[in-house]
Amino acid sequence: MKWYEQQGKQGDVVISSRIRLARNLKDFPFASKMSQSQAKEVLQKVKAAAKPLGLTYLSMEAMPPVNRQMLMERHIISPEMLGAVDTKAVLISEDEKISVMVNEEDHLRIQSMMPGLGLQEALKSANHVDDVLEKSLDYGFHPQYGYTTCCPTNTGTGLRASCMLHLPALTANGFIHTLLASVGKLGFTIRGVYGEGTKALGNLYQISNQITLGISEEETIKRLVELVLMVGDKERKMRQNILAEQKSRITDMVMRSLGTLKNAYILSSDEAFKLISDVRLGINMGIIKDVDITDINRLSYEVGAAHIASLCGEDGESAEKRDIMRAKLAREKLSLKG
Amino acid sequence: MKWYEQQGKQGDVVISSRIRLARNLKDFPFASKMSQSQAKEVLQKVKAAAKPLGLTYLSMEAMPPVNRQMLMERHIISPEMLGAVDTKAVLISEDEKISVMVNEEDHLRIQSMMPGLGLQEALKSANHVDDVLEKSLDYGFHPQYGYTTCCPTNTGTGLRASCMLHLPALTANGFIHTLLASVGKLGFTIRGVYGEGTKALGNLYQISNQITLGISEEETIKRLVELVLMVGDKERKMRQNILAEQKSRITDMVMRSLGTLKNAYILSSDEAFKLISDVRLGINMGIIKDVDITDINRLSYEVGAAHIASLCGEDGESAEKRDIMRAKLAREKLSLKG
Repeated sequence: MKWYEQQGKQGDVVISSRIRLARNLKDFPFASKMSQSQAKEVLQKVKAAAKPLGLTYLSMEAMPPVNRQMLMERHIISPEMLGAVDTKAVLISEDEKISVMVNEEDHLRIQSMMPGLGLQEALKSANHVDDVLEKSLDYGFHPQYGYTTCCPTNTGTGLRASCMLHLPALTANGFIHTLLASVGKLGFTIRGVYGEGTKALGNLYQISNQITLGISEEETIKRLVELVLMVGDKERKMRQNILAEQKSRITDMVMRSLGTLKNAYILSSDEAFKLISDVRLGINMGIIKDVDITDINRLSYEVGAAHIASLCGEDGESAEKRDIMRAKLAREKLSLKG
Repeated sequence: MKWYEQQGKQGDVVISSRIRLARNLKDFPFASKMSQSQAKEVLQKVKAAAKPLGLTYLSMEAMPPVNRQMLMERHIISPEMLGAVDTKAVLISEDEKISVMVNEEDHLRIQSMMPGLGLQEALKSANHVDDVLEKSLDYGFHPQYGYTTCCPTNTGTGLRASCMLHLPALTANGFIHTLLASVGKLGFTIRGVYGEGTKALGNLYQISNQITLGISEEETIKRLVELVLMVGDKERKMRQNILAEQKSRITDMVMRSLGTLKNAYILSSDEAFKLISDVRLGINMGIIKDVDITDINRLSYEVGAAHIASLCGEDGESAEKRDIMRAKLAREKLSLKG
């Protein structure tokens, strides 16, 4: 079972938590300055060091381009991994909770995902991977500044902790603007996961720490959890207000979106994200009762352009055929569940 | 079973056929010139004459206003029947095929409805009512000009024959404009059943004869049937073109409308007419297979404002509550059928 097929804490607002640790090998130049042979040496060293973890090693070069896109849509790899593929690889656990990108911006990017609000668990699991790798690898580490990283914004803990939040009510009432403007002062940043700024497609936002120097991993996560809980409370209160004041309107909106998702024959990814957001809200507000939230979690990945293209096979190049396949997938996934 | 719960000939395009005969009693002034006591005398005479027909006699005055509106929505009475209700009545058969308005513009308006293309049958059945009534009533009749009527446009046969057609494809491709402009020359008229002209709500059009003088009932109907068959063929050809060239798009459109009709919580009558038109098209094009056309026929009456107001009881005054009730009705009627 993949991590996104599980329901996590605070799952009505928090879709997922992610920990990313940036690490570099002290005997090699940073990834951007390495020769190809050095890069391949790093690949081999990491592959050997990761053996005890039982991860699957995937060379980016050996992978069909559509599969790379799929990994990106599932947030397992970053866009940087799509270039200079002959020097890059990713190691992944069966449940996709753990992934290690090799020769991205840093030599190592250790990632751990958890459903819902699970930053502590994700950190624990990333730390375990880090510890195992460190047994065989020599990390660049400065006694005063901490882990060395290619970009100075990561130096220190090398930690990026983030949560993906579903904030349809705060988006609808405009409070999201205040939030976007204010979290920076607290050392955090918030941005749309798809699309730009407040035009977040599917009302999904990622909130993450900006500071990695002069603060411990534990303190970073403690503050992020506090912020996420505060935002979650605000979102929930606003949902309750909507339910109290505009129950028919919101019921109409989410049920129409469910009806469209269950019946459409052509579905763009933009529309799919919007409909999925509405249905997710409907489930979490108790309006939609016969759809399982984990089906919606899974569907939100499965409707991505690369996932659909891979289902289409040879027809994957045609946007029209992808839109028809996307609609078919949504119908099938939802009709089984009422 | 009401007539609109049955499927008629050419039912994929022709919703219904209607015959209306205008008759006046020669010993009374026209309805607009009668005293109240004369009008009441006409009511009594007609009621007595109609006895052998086994129709239900409904005094307009005794009827709650919402019920009058419902009869109008089902095309059993005309808007004129809503004024000066103390002098008006309607006689109706159980299946609502036959109705006789008394003291509308003419003393008698005998109507006969049939599902699909059934003008001959409707004429036969109207003639039967006419014959029975004539046994006890003295009609105004001129040996040269035929039946006398209040408005000279009805003088002669007193016949108005009409068909209600569903023309979504001809509306979409704009051919409806040519049709609207050309049928006048043939002595017919075509207009939107709801809304005005080409802005026909729900793509429903009524086509009827304009000429009542110098042409027999049989000839009028023969020509109207020819015209309806010609229009029906054009509509069908256009539907086939759409299916051949834009199958995904049309499937997407009708399935989304079905999804909305099955799931919405707020539904205006305008939107309901549009959705019902799409679903009707989907059924008749073979795209929608699990919805029965007679359910759609019934629903198209049941979503009318007065029918919904009557279901709402005390809440019937509020447009918002009617829209919620309309959506509930559509969900219930369609969810039972898959």
